[in-house]
Order: sequence, then structure tokens, then C-alpha cells
Amino acid sequence: MEPLLLIPGPTPVPPAVREALAQPLIGHRGPAFVELYRRVTRRLKPLFGTEQEVLIFPGSGTGAMEAAVVNLFSPGDRVIVLVAGAFGERFAAIAEAFGLAVDRLEAPWGQVVPPERLRERLLTYPPGEVRGVFITHNETSTGALSPLEELVRVARQESGALVVVDSVSGLGGTPVAMDRLGIDCVVTASQKCLMSPPGLALLALSPSAWQATERARLPRSYWDVQEARRFGEQGETPYTPAVSLWFALDRALDLIEAEGLEQVYARHRRMGAMVRAGGRALGLEVLAPEAHASPTVTCLLLPEGLDAGAVRRALRARGVEVAGGQGALKSRAIRIAHMGAIQPEHLLQGLLALGEVLRDQGLAVSPEEAVAAAEAAQAE
Amino acid sequence: MEPLLLIPGPTPVPPAVREALAQPLIGHRGPAFVELYRRVTRRLKPLFGTEQEVLIFPGSGTGAMEAAVVNLFSPGDRVIVLVAGAFGERFAAIAEAFGLAVDRLEAPWGQVVPPERLRERLLTYPPGEVRGVFITHNETSTGALSPLEELVRVARQESGALVVVDSVSGLGGTPVAMDRLGIDCVVTASQKCLMSPPGLALLALSPSAWQATERARLPRSYWDVQEARRFGEQGETPYTPAVSLWFALDRALDLIEAEGLEQVYARHRRMGAMVRAGGRALGLEVLAPEAHASPTVTCLLLPEGLDAGAVRRALRARGVEVAGGQGALKSRAIRIAHMGAIQPEHLLQGLLALGEVLRDQGLAVSPEEAVAAAEAAQAE
Repeated sequence: MEPLLLIPGPTPVPPAVREALAQPLIGHRGPAFVELYRRVTRRLKPLFGTEQEVLIFPGSGTGAMEAAVVNLFSPGDRVIVLVAGAFGERFAAIAEAFGLAVDRLEAPWGQVVPPERLRERLLTYPPGEVRGVFITHNETSTGALSPLEELVRVARQESGALVVVDSVSGLGGTPVAMDRLGIDCVVTASQKCLMSPPGLALLALSPSAWQATERARLPRSYWDVQEARRFGEQGETPYTPAVSLWFALDRALDLIEAEGLEQVYARHRRMGAMVRAGGRALGLEVLAPEAHASPTVTCLLLPEGLDAGAVRRALRARGVEVAGGQGALKSRAIRIAHMGAIQPEHLLQGLLALGEVLRDQGLAVSPEEAVAAAEAAQAE
Repeated sequence: MEPLLLIPGPTPVPPAVREALAQPLIGHRGPAFVELYRRVTRRLKPLFGTEQEVLIFPGSGTGAMEAAVVNLFSPGDRVIVLVAGAFGERFAAIAEAFGLAVDRLEAPWGQVVPPERLRERLLTYPPGEVRGVFITHNETSTGALSPLEELVRVARQESGALVVVDSVSGLGGTPVAMDRLGIDCVVTASQKCLMSPPGLALLALSPSAWQATERARLPRSYWDVQEARRFGEQGETPYTPAVSLWFALDRALDLIEAEGLEQVYARHRRMGAMVRAGGRALGLEVLAPEAHASPTVTCLLLPEGLDAGAVRRALRARGVEVAGGQGALKSRAIRIAHMGAIQPEHLLQGLLALGEVLRDQGLAVSPEEAVAAAEAAQAE
């Protein structure tokens, strides 16, 4: 039996998308690819909330993050990176690897950085000094959703910094509204809410960000957005694109459009509520505060004495795959994804299995009550 | 009807490989991926001719080239890049983008750089100054195969430079023998002789190259081979791998092993001879001299007055996809791939269609004679 994949990427890829993936290859310098290029990039714009071009590179989401750094900045540039989990830390590490002067604005894992703290930090710098503010939209390691609109507003009010947003596990599952909010760069990837296999790195840049690419002096070649845009105008890419993954993403966009973007977002919100309700019914603590709970992934803290590795193995034996915690939470937490092609009924199945595993481990819990709590949350 | 893809990447992906590609996704931090990681990387070693670890990144072949540059060198390092086509030029451009001091050792497109010229050029530098020699093993833009063994021998005799080889369109179709020849870094990609879809960048490093990664000071993050090796020891990758493409490559390696590596190489040699014989029977000139003709791709010069774009469109209307020339040869040449999953019978079909197209364009040629010439070459 096919395992139920409830990890935050790669997420399950629907049969129709896998069928598209398996199509015979086409040349990337011919008319069929040009048409595919234009159709996919055009249809991604509403998901980014932008009228700007969306660029797609062969690579992972981490590659899209590197692309943002090398295209927009110069060695020594001062940037503030919001860090409240593993992916905020990753963005900081990438920026440091390229010689940016990184100021980490930290919050405890599971929390979000409050906009007021960003304002305070920005005001400690002379005007114009901070060149970039990096925000993790949806922290995959903790299941916390940043207050994106407020953070971006503060960043724009208090600085001329470029606002760079990692929405690898948000975009497609929750609104991004890049243009309306005034975000300068949004990066994402194919294997989370976009219900495609991993291997495509996506990003879009604001007009100000495009101007910044003219001044940026970090070395760049593979991730060069100017080259990508230049080729993109002809419906091509500077080097061989991951054609099969484009087929898949094209089909996934059909599915998203058929469901309707607002319905997709509502489903994600509902699924988040289901997992939190079901998890709490099993006596587990949700790491993120309810006000900032992610609509795409939930991190559940296990009771003292229960090992995440053991829980994951027992779930795997029942055909359910969940992720462990990250960093210090590795053995203390599990993460359940509710994004992309995952449906409410998959979560009921996953919560039932989790309840059974916890009961087998000696906890006085009722799997059926967890399912009932999730169903109640679903109905709300 | 499925078009016959005779372009040098993406090459046709066999049904069995596309079926593997379409498998349900698995987590990249679970035991199934660990097993896949170890099986794929182990089985790639004979194709690289190495006992060293093979690393796989989500990316194109161009990404693997960038990986070689950023992991092995420091700003200002003097390197000699052999340039006799578009991909030699690309390697030079990448090295320049990262601030290396690039000395292009050029030969006319279609030719190869003679080993003696590399020796002369190396001897113009003080001992120890040249830190890298970049060789394009098989120049996809011209169909010329470099005399790899002699070039590497000269580079090693006359310098302490690291020898970096782009075998994107060679590896898997023609022997590389990295360890025996003393090559320090070989880069390749999934979508040519490895008969998989595009999107995986592969490379292997010699012990000296691994030492060089300790000293190299170019900024690196995404392409960091040390991180990749560290995770690889556990059968994992630093960030999400392109899992579906790993499924495909795994299956493609089954097919290569079933055919036998020596038989695969022999088939490629035979297919090259077929296309050259068939092309000549149609009155077309083979760009590369016979002594350096590529076993994986052939560039055929069209007679004066014939436009490559028109020929390609007419072939496409007959269900056959070939590539145009590159650079100055764009409208003057076509390129026919004979690599990966392409079989002799596909080439006969392609040559027949090409003959018909040329005859339609008014050339006094016999498509049947081209096929007969190719069959004769196949039988030799």
C-alpha cells in the first residue's frame, strides 16, 4: 500500500500530476516548451500575488534563497534576518556565506518575531544602512506563520531595505500578495503547497528589486535573474530546464485553478485547525501559539519520555509518514504537514494512526476522540 | 504520435524510466531514500571511473560546472579553460563570473585543442601559477570529443593544476576513467547519456580536489560539496533532493547495467559512425574531424542557402526533433544526438526524414542511400 505522506515536503503528488511528470520529454528550445514556459509562469502570478515575472530554476527552495541573496546584495551589505526556526537560520547562514553583515533578529522557536521588535531593531541603524530584511513567511520547522503584512509594513516604513520573503512552505497554501504588500522578492519551491515533485526553485522580484540587481556585486552565474529574465522573454531558460518538473507543475496548477485559489486557502486553514484540534485531543501541545499557527504545517510536542523517532517509526509501520522536530526539538516533536494535495480525510487517517501509536506507547488517549475533535474543527 | 527526440538533451527517456519517475513521492529523511541514495551513488562510480563519492545536486549541468568553480578555487586564481565551442565558453564565463583569472586556450569550433598547445600554454606560466585546467570532454555544440587522456597527462606533467572536466554530454556514453587518468573533478548531468529527465547535477572529486575544497575561498552554500559529502555519509542531502529524478536515474542505471557499460559505449561509437556516414551520403559535411568525432552528438553543416531553422521545422512536421547549430553556426548547422536511450533504428528513421526534407528543399539527394550508408556503418 502506498504510504500516507504527511511530511512538509516532498508532499504527496496527485496521480494526475505524476502522470504529467511521466510524459515523453520535449526539447527546451522548441515551440512546445515556449508555450509551456508562458503558461506556467503566467499562472503562477496569482499565487505570488504579483504582476511581475516569475522565474523558475532547476533547484531546491534553498537554491531560490541563494538566488535572492546573490542577485540583490553586495559583500558587506547589512541585512536583518528574522530567525525563529531552522529556515530563518538557513537564510541567515546563506547570507553569511556570501559575506553579508547579518543581524539575526531572533524569537524563540515556535514564536514569530513581533513587528514592533523589527521596528526597534531597524531604528538602531542609521537611515539607509540596512539593505535587506529577510522574513520567513511560514517557518516549516515550527509551524508558525509570520504576520507578513505587518512585518513588511514596518520594514518599509522604517527603512529603504529590500524585503525578501521565504514562502517555500506558504505560497500556494496561504496568500502572499507580493505586490499589494510591497514585498521585493518572494522565493518558493515546487514540492510543498504546489503539489509537485521537488526540483524547481521559483522566485519573483519587484521593480525595486530588479533595480537592485543592477547594483548588486556578489558573483552570480547559475542563479542570475537578469539572464533568466532575458531568456524568459523568449519563453526559454539560459540552460536546460527541468522539463518534466515543468510538466508536473503545469498540471498541478490546473488542479489548483479547478479548486479555486480561495477554496485552496480555506482548505489549508481548515486542515490546520483539524490537526491542532486532533493533536490537543491527544494531549499534545501545539508549538506555535494559536494566533500564529501555520495553515500548512503543525509541530506537536510529545510528552516527556516519548521519543519522536520511536513514534515516527511506529507510524511508518502503519503506513503514515510524519516528520520529526528540527534542531533542539528533533526527538521531542513531530511535524504533520497539511499542505498541497493533502486532504482533510488524510489528516483524519493520520490522527487516528497517531492516536493508536500513542496509546500503544502507554498514553491514556483515545484515537477516536482525536478524530472527532478534528472532524468538529473541519465542520466549523 | 510521440516525436522522435534527437536533440542533445533532454534526450528521450525510456518508458521504464518515466514509469519510475512517476512513482509516489517518499520522504528524503527516511530509510527508503537512504537506500536509494546509496544505490544510485554507488552505481554511478563505474560511469565516472572513480572510487570517490559521486554527489548529486538538484540543478542542471551548468550548476555542476558552477559547483566545480566555487568549491575548488579562490578569487583571482589563474585557470586555463580550453574553448572550442559553446560549452567551453560557458565554463570560461562561469569562472570569470566568480573572479578567476581566465586564460582561454581556443581552437576553432569543431576542432579540439591539441595537447601540445596546452603544454606550450602551461609553460608560459611560472611553476605553480596555474591552479586549474578546464577541459570540455565532449563539446555538445560541435560534436567534437577531446583527447582526454593526452590532455590530462599534459596538464599533470606540466603543472600542479587541478584538472576539471565537463563531461555533461560524454559520461555514460563514452568512458571517463577519472581515477586512472588522474582527473580532479568530473561534472555531468542527468538528461544526456544517463537517459533521465533534466534536473540533476552530478560531480565527483579526487582526493586532491577534496583537499582544495579546504583552501578554496569563493563563497559557496548551495553547491557546497563538503556539506553534501557530510550528509551523504548518512545517505542524505543537505536540503530537499529532487526525489522523483533520483527514482528515474536509479531505473536508468538498471537499464545501463543490463546492457553492459562496454556495450553501451560500443553502441554510442556505432551510432556516431552511422550519423556521420548517413550525413555524408546526404552531401553534408561533418563539422568535427573524423579522429575527434563525438560518439554522442554530431554537428552537420548544411549547404549554402539552406537555413537550419527551416530544416528543423520541416523535420518537426515529420515528427523528428533535431537541434540547430550554436553560436555562429546557429542557422548553418543541425545537430543530431545519438546518446542515452537513442537506438540505431531511431537514427535510421531520423536520417530518412532528414533526407526527405533535404530533397524537398531541392537538393539532389537520396534518403534511401543515406539510410543504406548508415546501415553499412552500423554493420562494421
